Amino acid sequence: MHYHELATLGQQLRVDAVRAADAAGSGHPTSSMSAADIGAVLLAHHLRFDFDHPEHPGNDRLVLSKGHASPLLYAMYKAAGAVQDDELLTFRKLGSRLEGHPTPRLPWVDVATGSLGQGLPVGVGIALAGKRLDDIPYHVYVLSGDSEMAEGSVWEAVEHAAYNHLDNLTLIVDVNRLGQRGPTRHGHHLAAYERRLHAFGWHTIEVDGHDVEAVDRAFAEARSTIRQPTAILAATHKGRGVAAVEDLEGFHGKPVKDAQAAVAELGGSRSLRVDVRGPADATGRKTVPSGDGDPAEPRLPRFDVGDTVATRTAFGHALEALGSARADVVALDAEVGDSTRAEFFAKAHPDRYFECYIAEQQLVAAAVGLQTRGYVPYASTFAAFLTRAYDFVRMAAVSQAGINLVGSHAGVAIGQDGPSQMGLEDLAMFRSVHGSTVLYPCDANQTARLVATMADLKGVRYLRTSRGDMPVLYGPDETFPVGGSKVLRGHGDDDRATIVAAGVTLHEALKAADLLEDHGIPVRVIDLYSVKPVDVDTLTEAARATGCLLTVEDHHPEGGLGDAVAEAFSDGRPAPRMARLAVRDMPASATPEEQLRKAGIDAESIAAAVQLLVESDITP
Amino acid sequence: MHYHELATLGQQLRVDAVRAADAAGSGHPTSSMSAADIGAVLLAHHLRFDFDHPEHPGNDRLVLSKGHASPLLYAMYKAAGAVQDDELLTFRKLGSRLEGHPTPRLPWVDVATGSLGQGLPVGVGIALAGKRLDDIPYHVYVLSGDSEMAEGSVWEAVEHAAYNHLDNLTLIVDVNRLGQRGPTRHGHHLAAYERRLHAFGWHTIEVDGHDVEAVDRAFAEARSTIRQPTAILAATHKGRGVAAVEDLEGFHGKPVKDAQAAVAELGGSRSLRVDVRGPADATGRKTVPSGDGDPAEPRLPRFDVGDTVATRTAFGHALEALGSARADVVALDAEVGDSTRAEFFAKAHPDRYFECYIAEQQLVAAAVGLQTRGYVPYASTFAAFLTRAYDFVRMAAVSQAGINLVGSHAGVAIGQDGPSQMGLEDLAMFRSVHGSTVLYPCDANQTARLVATMADLKGVRYLRTSRGDMPVLYGPDETFPVGGSKVLRGHGDDDRATIVAAGVTLHEALKAADLLEDHGIPVRVIDLYSVKPVDVDTLTEAARATGCLLTVEDHHPEGGLGDAVAEAFSDGRPAPRMARLAVRDMPASATPEEQLRKAGIDAESIAAAVQLLVESDITP
Repeated sequence: MHYHELATLGQQLRVDAVRAADAAGSGHPTSSMSAADIGAVLLAHHLRFDFDHPEHPGNDRLVLSKGHASPLLYAMYKAAGAVQDDELLTFRKLGSRLEGHPTPRLPWVDVATGSLGQGLPVGVGIALAGKRLDDIPYHVYVLSGDSEMAEGSVWEAVEHAAYNHLDNLTLIVDVNRLGQRGPTRHGHHLAAYERRLHAFGWHTIEVDGHDVEAVDRAFAEARSTIRQPTAILAATHKGRGVAAVEDLEGFHGKPVKDAQAAVAELGGSRSLRVDVRGPADATGRKTVPSGDGDPAEPRLPRFDVGDTVATRTAFGHALEALGSARADVVALDAEVGDSTRAEFFAKAHPDRYFECYIAEQQLVAAAVGLQTRGYVPYASTFAAFLTRAYDFVRMAAVSQAGINLVGSHAGVAIGQDGPSQMGLEDLAMFRSVHGSTVLYPCDANQTARLVATMADLKGVRYLRTSRGDMPVLYGPDETFPVGGSKVLRGHGDDDRATIVAAGVTLHEALKAADLLEDHGIPVRVIDLYSVKPVDVDTLTEAARATGCLLTVEDHHPEGGLGDAVAEAFSDGRPAPRMARLAVRDMPASATPEEQLRKAGIDAESIAAAVQLLVESDITP
Repeated sequence: MHYHELATLGQQLRVDAVRAADAAGSGHPTSSMSAADIGAVLLAHHLRFDFDHPEHPGNDRLVLSKGHASPLLYAMYKAAGAVQDDELLTFRKLGSRLEGHPTPRLPWVDVATGSLGQGLPVGVGIALAGKRLDDIPYHVYVLSGDSEMAEGSVWEAVEHAAYNHLDNLTLIVDVNRLGQRGPTRHGHHLAAYERRLHAFGWHTIEVDGHDVEAVDRAFAEARSTIRQPTAILAATHKGRGVAAVEDLEGFHGKPVKDAQAAVAELGGSRSLRVDVRGPADATGRKTVPSGDGDPAEPRLPRFDVGDTVATRTAFGHALEALGSARADVVALDAEVGDSTRAEFFAKAHPDRYFECYIAEQQLVAAAVGLQTRGYVPYASTFAAFLTRAYDFVRMAAVSQAGINLVGSHAGVAIGQDGPSQMGLEDLAMFRSVHGSTVLYPCDANQTARLVATMADLKGVRYLRTSRGDMPVLYGPDETFPVGGSKVLRGHGDDDRATIVAAGVTLHEALKAADLLEDHGIPVRVIDLYSVKPVDVDTLTEAARATGCLLTVEDHHPEGGLGDAVAEAFSDGRPAPRMARLAVRDMPASATPEEQLRKAGIDAESIAAAVQLLVESDITP
């Protein structure tokens, strides 16, 4: 396209953004208008994308980090012929694929955006796949706002991209000077961004974001830059092209008042069509290794019943074995692989291991990026530190991403290190994520099986592992369906109570059952390794037979095992008597045994609680 | 002290770190030894601190961001005479104040550390207090590791500190080259850090961290630097002074094997005492304005029953009023003050308003920092985006911090913007925080009261507000005790069921009650504005009278209202029949009304669910 046509295309994108928001009665046209010329140049001259085959492995990727500028993205889709005008005008309406912020309900969108500062970290993950795994020359474009450069996650990604020489990654910062409630810190001072990005090792280009020729040159320079990611810093005007809103405060997230006049001012409606270039390697498509056929059965480690092994160690060995069986499995860790045992995988499969250093947001974002390319990522760190990435986990669910997250060092059982290192909120955090699976094994063979099983689940999968050694309870051939549980003790209808536990407390529960039996109180013990989904049938039968359930968890009382078991009885049926033991006080340093005792989740505390529960069992 | 004495003091700190970890059988001596000379110089020559009066407003602050180097901190306390040798050797033992990572159980520790990358953001909060509120020339020192510079939160703080010209803040980076599992990204390449920090506007000094004279000069230069924060980049050796571990991999987080030999190699045990200089303004102490006497009663806004007002708007007005009554109240927002309505406070009290831009980790960290100086912070953003700062919230609880967090735009009721902007995990997230309070008002007067009430609570307080206008239900003089609830409909023992709701669903519940009454089904409606602590008595009475409870929440099914009500029946008593309505599918764009309907939490869905519940009410 000639430059004057590109400029015209930019106006068309603005017009369509204004029209879409006007039809919706809400949305962010002004944030779209600032980046319209950038979008026009990218679409017409640089993006290589087969809109009929969004799954094409050679396609470039475009991540709209400033997700609120969705009208621009949808206007680009329309210009590319992928979306028709009538669909454009369904923007933000019930049932429309054109949501307020883009999600993968649209086939050309890899990941949901809308929580600012996530586009670049996820883009880094996709670029890592392209560079280190796919070896396909697709380019990853991230279009970001200037406000979101204040997010720390952006700088985790900036560091990571430069360190990994991701020259297949281009960040475009739409520096329109205005955030939601007013001016940004740095306004139109492009040098402020340039200095920072340059210091981290990026190639930087400053341009007038409304000069299509300059933007065009910048994209070409970005694509030809080697060994460095490139940032195009584009000075733009929010609301560009409509005098009533251009470069003015107070017009964020609002349709332009007089849309008809605005469209006229922008030159009226047009219907330019762009023939977007297809990917270069259209003939020699590559796919993720395991894309064809069923993955091989992993030769999981086998542990002997009675041995003592930490579940984190079993995780490491199982992940290594899974990596040997399946070339699509990749692992990431946040500089604690020696603790989480991800290092076993790292040593066996260094080419598929991603060290993310102490940057948990980048860790999860990279996993999300990698799974867009068909890989099956396992990202691990301490359970406590996964809280750092909760927003990324939440958005991963919106992105329909399939990722495995593994949190080690769960609960007070870690001992001396104290509360800062103890995962005590992780079950609550992951249970409340849409479509998630939450697994919490108590022994090595169970862990190994669950590590393999979770690979093929949908959505966000969380595995909670423990620091200390624990006895192996299950044989290596035992299976553990997701949504199941195991009854480890039970005497039929003679049982006076049911203890529901998982992980470290399961072992305490078994000891408690012995103590209680000595006192003539037979009890049932359920290993609730699948915290979500929860085994409603087994819990229901236990409730019927024993009348009361005691949950015991190395977690705060809210959101974990106790809540999960209670939820199993939230369908209107009569509920059993329930009680819960959990970590109610703020722990300090102590040995693991002292911690369990102090928190009241050790065998003696459990036995005492059951006794109390059984004694108070007076049918009302 | 002479330099040779400083060097000797450094050796003593190493010896004590080695001894403490040896006595504990765990801990991080090598990470302490790298920073021992820095600690010695800081303690003997630069820190102004009255150890007998840790509450002295003029005291400098020292935040040990690399909290695992606690043995160094405790060795410094010993050198200052604040801790005796026998207590030093209780390190990491049950009941000891000397925890694995420092917490405010020690009177000289302002905030807990141990989750890396939090010290600087919190230090920025303290420095902001010193600069903008206290006007006291205390200096804030943050001692950080090099690994943690990979955390995005550090760069949020770096940006914030420079932008605010915090020349009362000095960051010392202990560049010992080795992280937990191996070398850091930048090793001993000080220039890598220097370039980045300089680009953000910091004054930087590179030193040999074992050259006490150079370190001494650097501290002096930092203190005399104006208009800029200073970073001292100190090249050090992990395990310095003991050949068996110095600058070697594989010795992170482990006691030195032969402690006796190590102590000998370090010159043996010593007992140098440092007379730490007191604060400069020891005579003219300043305190937080409201420190004396009871704060004035705020003149809260009064809303008329029947009017429609958004609870976020009521929050803004109430916060403004609270700020007028109390000079200790401060507000912070992450660049969405026009949406959260924190801008009402900003306009009325600009001197006590802190714009944190789009950096939620810094937002919460600044609140934590401000409360260490006695201020009562209210930090607000979208509920969805508070997930970004979950690790900071979790650590705030370990820090015993009193902070108010306000999350707006809760749930699907926001409408068209879609799931990325909807707080649907926030109740779960905050409920599971130790010692937290979770409030969720449904009308303007209730909101105003709760905003005032939460100011004087302990721990992390969370208020959930809504985007849309809702009818005012309560008169302005109604009171809302924390842990209470309101029965808004009820016919005594005639009620066939109880609907428990809060916020937007409370209004739907009332409409449902009308529908049900038309069908001859009298129901009770409880406004559960206090989600944690929850009103066990009222729920128990409702269970007794009506036999079944239906919870309705604009939140995912896990961790929120449903779990909170279930938890109320987790003390072993017979539980009622319970059912829950919640947001079970991933929402998309739609109007607020369509969203409630689609999620099945609108009046019609509630009425239908109650009917089903009542019809299935067969006593077993």
